[in-house]
Amino acid sequence: MPSDPPFDRLIAHNERYVEAFDRSLLTAAPRTGLAILTCMDARIDLAGALGIEIGDAHVIRNAAGLATDDAVRSLAVSQQLLGTRAIVVIGHTRCGLQEADEADLRARIEQSTGASTAMRFGSFADLESTVRAQVEILRRHPVLLRVPVQGLVYEVETGRMRSVV
Amino acid sequence: MPSDPPFDRLIAHNERYVEAFDRSLLTAAPRTGLAILTCMDARIDLAGALGIEIGDAHVIRNAAGLATDDAVRSLAVSQQLLGTRAIVVIGHTRCGLQEADEADLRARIEQSTGASTAMRFGSFADLESTVRAQVEILRRHPVLLRVPVQGLVYEVETGRMRSVV
Repeated sequence: MPSDPPFDRLIAHNERYVEAFDRSLLTAAPRTGLAILTCMDARIDLAGALGIEIGDAHVIRNAAGLATDDAVRSLAVSQQLLGTRAIVVIGHTRCGLQEADEADLRARIEQSTGASTAMRFGSFADLESTVRAQVEILRRHPVLLRVPVQGLVYEVETGRMRSVV
Repeated sequence: MPSDPPFDRLIAHNERYVEAFDRSLLTAAPRTGLAILTCMDARIDLAGALGIEIGDAHVIRNAAGLATDDAVRSLAVSQQLLGTRAIVVIGHTRCGLQEADEADLRARIEQSTGASTAMRFGSFADLESTVRAQVEILRRHPVLLRVPVQGLVYEVETGRMRSVV
């Protein structure tokens, strides 16, 4: 890991992007009517693995891809303001939160920041049942529309997206 | 917007991805030590606009790219379990939540789902000051490490990433 954050490199890269930019006509409403909820994991490549292009879909990401209250907030905005009408939930193998120890995480935070916290981090035991549970939350959530919700597992070892529900 | 959700098309695309897959050696820890917090907006292209490659960075996304409790949960996991040591917050022009009317959103939800909700959706007035406020939350949050936090505004009209803090 570099010792300096790569902020300058990001901005330098952007100069070239601006010169070739041709997406000024994309609208805020996603082209496919899709909202995707997945993990923050750096290995997940929605363009490559699913053919999701820029402009196609809303993408909501958090640690483990959980249907948290904040994810539901985002999905409600996505549906009501920008017209999405289907949801895909994607969990993945080798997630840092699978089998993670909540008490150990709280202890690490206290040791490194001095803050004692009662935060729940979203650790989980079984991947497929966790994806199913998120799909169920979204299918039944009172503030969301009754839209199709699919659950996938992404295998970081093979690149495969497996439908689980 | 297509009337059927594009689930089958996504899975069909994935067959080709699996055949050419060469990322099985990527690790869970992001290569650059970076965590990015941005909006769910379909137009944001982190690979193109900033040169963020698959494996480089954690990506946390929600409606408006806000430093919500759930984003802080994700960032704490990112830092403690997977070693990220810098954060970039990215807001963007023409965000659906800029100048959005919270009461109108609640009314739309009630009309379309029957649910009355007190949910706050994260609407905001000024883009740059909102990005600054998210950066401040993360710089001072007790459960997060004191790491560099940069704030950018992405211009969907030009492709430019402007540093605001």
